[in-house]
Amino acid sequence: FDLMLLQTTLSLFVRAHVSVNPAKLKSHRQRWNVRPSEMSKKTLNPIRAIVDGMKLTPNPEKPMIALSIGDPTVFGNLPTDDTVLQAMKEAIDSHKYNGYAPSVGYQKSREAVSNFYSCPEAPLEGKDVILTSGCSQAIELAISVLCNPGDNILVPRPGFSLYKTLAVSMGIQVKHYNLLPEKSWEIDLQHLESLIDDKTACLIVNNPSNPCGSVFTKDHQHKILAVASRNCIPILADEIYGDMVFPGCDFQPLAPLSSDVPILSCGGLAKCWLVPGWRMGWILIHDHNDIFGTGIREGLVKLSQRILGPCTVVQGALESILNDTPPEFYQGTISFLKSNSEICFSELSTVPGLNPVMPTGAMYIMVGIEMEHFPDFQNDVEFTERLVTEQSVFCLPATAFEYPDFFRIVVTVPEEMMIEACIRIREFCARHYRPRSQDSHDLDQ
Amino acid sequence: FDLMLLQTTLSLFVRAHVSVNPAKLKSHRQRWNVRPSEMSKKTLNPIRAIVDGMKLTPNPEKPMIALSIGDPTVFGNLPTDDTVLQAMKEAIDSHKYNGYAPSVGYQKSREAVSNFYSCPEAPLEGKDVILTSGCSQAIELAISVLCNPGDNILVPRPGFSLYKTLAVSMGIQVKHYNLLPEKSWEIDLQHLESLIDDKTACLIVNNPSNPCGSVFTKDHQHKILAVASRNCIPILADEIYGDMVFPGCDFQPLAPLSSDVPILSCGGLAKCWLVPGWRMGWILIHDHNDIFGTGIREGLVKLSQRILGPCTVVQGALESILNDTPPEFYQGTISFLKSNSEICFSELSTVPGLNPVMPTGAMYIMVGIEMEHFPDFQNDVEFTERLVTEQSVFCLPATAFEYPDFFRIVVTVPEEMMIEACIRIREFCARHYRPRSQDSHDLDQ
Repeated sequence: FDLMLLQTTLSLFVRAHVSVNPAKLKSHRQRWNVRPSEMSKKTLNPIRAIVDGMKLTPNPEKPMIALSIGDPTVFGNLPTDDTVLQAMKEAIDSHKYNGYAPSVGYQKSREAVSNFYSCPEAPLEGKDVILTSGCSQAIELAISVLCNPGDNILVPRPGFSLYKTLAVSMGIQVKHYNLLPEKSWEIDLQHLESLIDDKTACLIVNNPSNPCGSVFTKDHQHKILAVASRNCIPILADEIYGDMVFPGCDFQPLAPLSSDVPILSCGGLAKCWLVPGWRMGWILIHDHNDIFGTGIREGLVKLSQRILGPCTVVQGALESILNDTPPEFYQGTISFLKSNSEICFSELSTVPGLNPVMPTGAMYIMVGIEMEHFPDFQNDVEFTERLVTEQSVFCLPATAFEYPDFFRIVVTVPEEMMIEACIRIREFCARHYRPRSQDSHDLDQ
Repeated sequence: FDLMLLQTTLSLFVRAHVSVNPAKLKSHRQRWNVRPSEMSKKTLNPIRAIVDGMKLTPNPEKPMIALSIGDPTVFGNLPTDDTVLQAMKEAIDSHKYNGYAPSVGYQKSREAVSNFYSCPEAPLEGKDVILTSGCSQAIELAISVLCNPGDNILVPRPGFSLYKTLAVSMGIQVKHYNLLPEKSWEIDLQHLESLIDDKTACLIVNNPSNPCGSVFTKDHQHKILAVASRNCIPILADEIYGDMVFPGCDFQPLAPLSSDVPILSCGGLAKCWLVPGWRMGWILIHDHNDIFGTGIREGLVKLSQRILGPCTVVQGALESILNDTPPEFYQGTISFLKSNSEICFSELSTVPGLNPVMPTGAMYIMVGIEMEHFPDFQNDVEFTERLVTEQSVFCLPATAFEYPDFFRIVVTVPEEMMIEACIRIREFCARHYRPRSQDSHDLDQ
């Protein structure tokens, strides 16, 4: 109300000036009315929307355990390698990386990335790499260059929410294709293909998957490519968790398997090198058959000129980070993630009412909730909310990934925390689990 | 042609599959047709467009001198301060800045910025600061939150080209208001106000100015604010060159002078700290009368979630960079820029046909060309092109700033290079200068 009063006063003040100002005649605005743009209003982060709507008051008797944050660095148990930090300090001491780089990145840094990911089936050169401010900007640029307002993109369900956040803000429609938990989160290919129409501009494939922790087989990826190929749909491959797969499982990038489908593969330093805050991402342009042509490449260059790429210090360190980080570092991270996943899976798979799906990569486990056995809760949001209230354990409700009745556990936390969390989840479920009426009827006999 | 052949083959291949694929019936796309988005095509960088169109073949007998690049670090004569580099290395060694920061930046880093810029007339707190990936993203977010497609913004002529690049790509119309060289590039306020209509969403004020090197007086800024106030237009103040003003001239940020006009002030580390490649920028939200309200603030937060802010290492170093860099460092940069500007100005002001305008800040001098005295050239683009061919000196034609018949000189180059460049420019002008027919007639007497 004060604001309205203020505005009235202002508008009077303004009118007073209007009289002495001929130019003002052209303007019809006689009071302050500054509103946020439609685009900013359409930029919605479902995770924030859901989490901010939850009553998250932990049990004061139990220390909080957050299994919700997809940041491997928060607990300090997964530091990056010294090689990585050393490379940064050398870049700083060289005094060579303080000025502007080309908006797509230093040629030397782009070549470091192309050399690291190039293979005979999908050769890469420096010109095929666009350096970006984190994988988020890589995904933003890829969607921006492939899609116009009114187009639609195909995204996985469950899936990472950023795809929708970006697309909707650009007036691009999002169509969700199903992943099948019973087939270790493979894509329901028939459902996927049934969604394609002549406004479909791009298929987003996220492998390894956030939130599922799944890794596609070569065979399954061939089938995905076949769908894209016969419908002439380019692919945005979100491979930020590439190479972050458990021993015995083999990650296969999508591009080397493609005979014709053009692919923009998005990645970065965030996960494998455990420095998500450094905002170093990239787009690898795979276009064997020149279907993107120069148009898409030039489009990406133009879009990169809006904010001029990632921090030059990290760019300067990139070659050494990619080439000098010892294999033991990656192996150490992976075996830790695997062992934590196994602990969590074996613990929760014996909990009545829960159905965890064992991951083979990334940093996550999805856990199904048999809601019919938990009548105290309407849905996964209430379930996880009360898990905080009673046990001070926070997991993201999978509604945040468009996938109700599941929750996501981040497995980067220290082992003892993982174990303690599982014990508390078991206790929570035991307290709220109700056998089906069928069973209770049996008991009555 | 090969491509067409390929596409035909593909479309046949596709049809072959169509028959066996019911879902395909929904899709009408039977051949590859991947085109860059309208937005990417509309993202135009006039500087690139003009420079790429020029034949820039230096004279092999003279080493190239580039006075065109607005990057103070390229010649190595203006290194950043050791304090700044030390702060970065400490941030790295602390292991505290590898994870994700909030998308608007660490609270501690935001407070470091608000403390640095806060003053009694325009107090700032951490919540009033949004950290961005360089000042470019600060400007992008500010325009994105204030404007909708179909709106228009008012930008200076001559002026920095990024405003137009960003606005046009978002479907926002750009209206240029004139700066007056004869009044040391003050704004033509009547012209400015005559451009305002009910679709005007934002006034961009760039002070100190790129490309002019001008600094507005307090009095002139009060007049600018009066125009904005009586027309109820919020201001985007691009103050990236703030404090980069010569001794004897006083830079006054716009916000402390404003009684009611809400202002988004954009800045960063790029220029004053001489690290443009690090991509550390910020928006200072000044809204004394709560005209932006929560809407604009929330809009900026939402937009920041698209790519999650600047590199955390630089964020971690920010407090020490702002607080510990010795005054002598800033003074050293400024006195160098002033002395180089004076050399360039005094040299070129005695060259027939040229009219340099002495700057009072930033890193640039604008030089007027009396085209009627240089019949060999159609315009400033041809003039500067031939200056490269004959003298191996490259200055940006001011057409790149929507201001023909001028060129811009960057004064960050080493002194001896500045002197040599001026000698060559004099030689070039002497060779091509033609007195007016009037004068030549006099000679005939």
